[in-house]
Amino acid sequence: MPLPQPELPEPAHPEVDSMLSRKFGKEIANYFSGSPLNRVSFLRPDHAFLSSAFKHPSANFLLFNKLEPLLASPTALHYAKYSDVQSIIGDDPFVTSEEDQIAEYNSTTYTPLLIFLGLDESKQGFKYKEHYKGQPYFALDVTPKLSVTEAAEKLIKDVEGKGLAFSKGRVHMSLRAQEAAIYAEARHLLDWNARNPFCGQCGHPTMSVNGGFKRTCPPKDASLKLERPSCATRTGISNLSFPRTDPTVIMAVVSANGRRILLGRQKRWPPYWYSTLAGFLEPAESVEEAVRREVWEESGIHLGRVVIHSTQPWPYPANLMIGAIGQAIPSGEEVNLGHDAELEDAKWFEAAEVREALRVGTSGLGEDAGPEYKEGGLRLPPKTAIAHQLISAVVNGFVSGTPMI
Amino acid sequence: MPLPQPELPEPAHPEVDSMLSRKFGKEIANYFSGSPLNRVSFLRPDHAFLSSAFKHPSANFLLFNKLEPLLASPTALHYAKYSDVQSIIGDDPFVTSEEDQIAEYNSTTYTPLLIFLGLDESKQGFKYKEHYKGQPYFALDVTPKLSVTEAAEKLIKDVEGKGLAFSKGRVHMSLRAQEAAIYAEARHLLDWNARNPFCGQCGHPTMSVNGGFKRTCPPKDASLKLERPSCATRTGISNLSFPRTDPTVIMAVVSANGRRILLGRQKRWPPYWYSTLAGFLEPAESVEEAVRREVWEESGIHLGRVVIHSTQPWPYPANLMIGAIGQAIPSGEEVNLGHDAELEDAKWFEAAEVREALRVGTSGLGEDAGPEYKEGGLRLPPKTAIAHQLISAVVNGFVSGTPMI
Repeated sequence: MPLPQPELPEPAHPEVDSMLSRKFGKEIANYFSGSPLNRVSFLRPDHAFLSSAFKHPSANFLLFNKLEPLLASPTALHYAKYSDVQSIIGDDPFVTSEEDQIAEYNSTTYTPLLIFLGLDESKQGFKYKEHYKGQPYFALDVTPKLSVTEAAEKLIKDVEGKGLAFSKGRVHMSLRAQEAAIYAEARHLLDWNARNPFCGQCGHPTMSVNGGFKRTCPPKDASLKLERPSCATRTGISNLSFPRTDPTVIMAVVSANGRRILLGRQKRWPPYWYSTLAGFLEPAESVEEAVRREVWEESGIHLGRVVIHSTQPWPYPANLMIGAIGQAIPSGEEVNLGHDAELEDAKWFEAAEVREALRVGTSGLGEDAGPEYKEGGLRLPPKTAIAHQLISAVVNGFVSGTPMI
Repeated sequence: MPLPQPELPEPAHPEVDSMLSRKFGKEIANYFSGSPLNRVSFLRPDHAFLSSAFKHPSANFLLFNKLEPLLASPTALHYAKYSDVQSIIGDDPFVTSEEDQIAEYNSTTYTPLLIFLGLDESKQGFKYKEHYKGQPYFALDVTPKLSVTEAAEKLIKDVEGKGLAFSKGRVHMSLRAQEAAIYAEARHLLDWNARNPFCGQCGHPTMSVNGGFKRTCPPKDASLKLERPSCATRTGISNLSFPRTDPTVIMAVVSANGRRILLGRQKRWPPYWYSTLAGFLEPAESVEEAVRREVWEESGIHLGRVVIHSTQPWPYPANLMIGAIGQAIPSGEEVNLGHDAELEDAKWFEAAEVREALRVGTSGLGEDAGPEYKEGGLRLPPKTAIAHQLISAVVNGFVSGTPMI
């Protein structure tokens, strides 16, 4: 049975007929972007704000068990309310200031991760100061462990008794677009916090602050008799204190004459399945340089001009996919898979074949292609993947002389 | 005295008249990009390769003392040779395999950081297998500390005796473009290694492998009687093992009618100095969303369409600047500095005033403006900053209807 088709996000301001949109066309909003929430990031250190948002009756809590979200259906998240989560996180985790919480830090006390995601300004009710209104959204880790084991097991039993279930694997790709963006924010932050319980600079335990968007290396630990050693992350600003996002380049490669597109495949993919090339950006590379390096390393092709098309958050665990289109130079079109051994194959496809595959041969990696697909035909990634958007921009726009950027 | 003017990198393939360059114009190569080195990233785990590159008479070693590079002049780096660095790093740090080095790890042994930067393929001499030729480049940390204190102090005295000097502060902005790109790669990697001596996952010491592009959490430590605990970074792939690069958005904001540009200033900047807005991309944001969020948080302006212009590596310590142009929606042009308190001022400028400032009022932050600058006129960042390129693209292209992207 095919999974429900997710909605793709609409462009942020479809009504705007600006000089930029007339010149470059409609902005492509990729899956996992298009969040309805205003993050009001500057309010995160303000516990008076977080406390009133947390306790507001409209507040929504997205629950995670081992990084899997609680679903209402295959296309929708379920949100718990304040009364549901009190047994896990207490009546008000923001009752004292952040400064006081850091001063009282005790590494032996387990506090479940609670992330402030933002305000949905389309919903009335909660208000803070003059400007900040909307329904508050939080994410909470309810994985049964340590001091919350019993309460978390009871909560999970209760929600499962109502017919709800935590997702299993990456079925999130069927969530409605706005839900997918909320989930992506929550998952990225929960994962980053979980991967960094210790300070990379000094090796001591750290604590989550700023509504889950920062980790700090406290100078004291109530469980220790001695002071902790000094740590460079405490003086000045250290990027180690802030969430990590890994820039990744992903690119549709066009031939020098503009008529063909290069696609590659990994060994573990289903037969006939191809996609764009991709790889991590390295230190001190521009995106354009990273695109040229990765394409050469994986396929031997030499690119000239590179243009950035659109971007996509990818929360497995922490990527920013930067989608680009690059054009091969006339003398650089020969495929060589011998440099980096990542791909099983890479080859040039005619635009017509790719257009047909976009029509009949797309699906998620673990799913079947559509009913019109004929065995042996090219298979491609689904609309939720930026690879699909890049391939589509090239064969539906570029080869006809109007790249869709 | 004004500093020497750095060269800006040339576009990667200026001769390529591709469909992409005809549609979008010449690619902008920003300062710190444009490296002449092929990183051959897939050869980094291969110690036979690293060993022969390290010992080759043509190998160049860029030396760093406390993250400051050794300069030949204000515009050029100095490169040491194999015989200069043997006293610090030994005859061949790659004589045993990476696997063996991890098995023999001892956390009490100090090994100075050595980074393999790449091969300059325009220079003949060194060759590995069929395809990989060129002059090898390495970076080496010669900061006097622990077991190398004496050898490092002697080496520093020797090079200073020859009239060479380690740079002081950010004078690297006067390096020639290709040298700046080599320096940026080295600095980013040295800094990342130095900030992460401990594993964020388990808190134990880590070691540098893969020519400085990876840190691993070894299962054994010869200085300990007991085995180390298991660590999640050892099973599967963990992003904590790889260098961190923080995506940052920086954007020129155009008014709804396309005739004005929004610039902001921080309190600590010299009088009359303005620049583009900028900020870190957050988890699970697309670049386009991060641009809209940051512009609203810092200035209150609401943006519609956002287009990505070009990107710039920024090695202080580990940023990727993603340059964009965004256009305000007609009802969203009112400035409000009250949300995030980062800026002292943000206001709209007419294109003519900005064009004049690009002609007479640009300089580095600590430098004087040019001789034609008149006190009270607008001041702007220098050509080496992507902010300058974005502002220039807008006032020299966008307002005349042809954005330079």
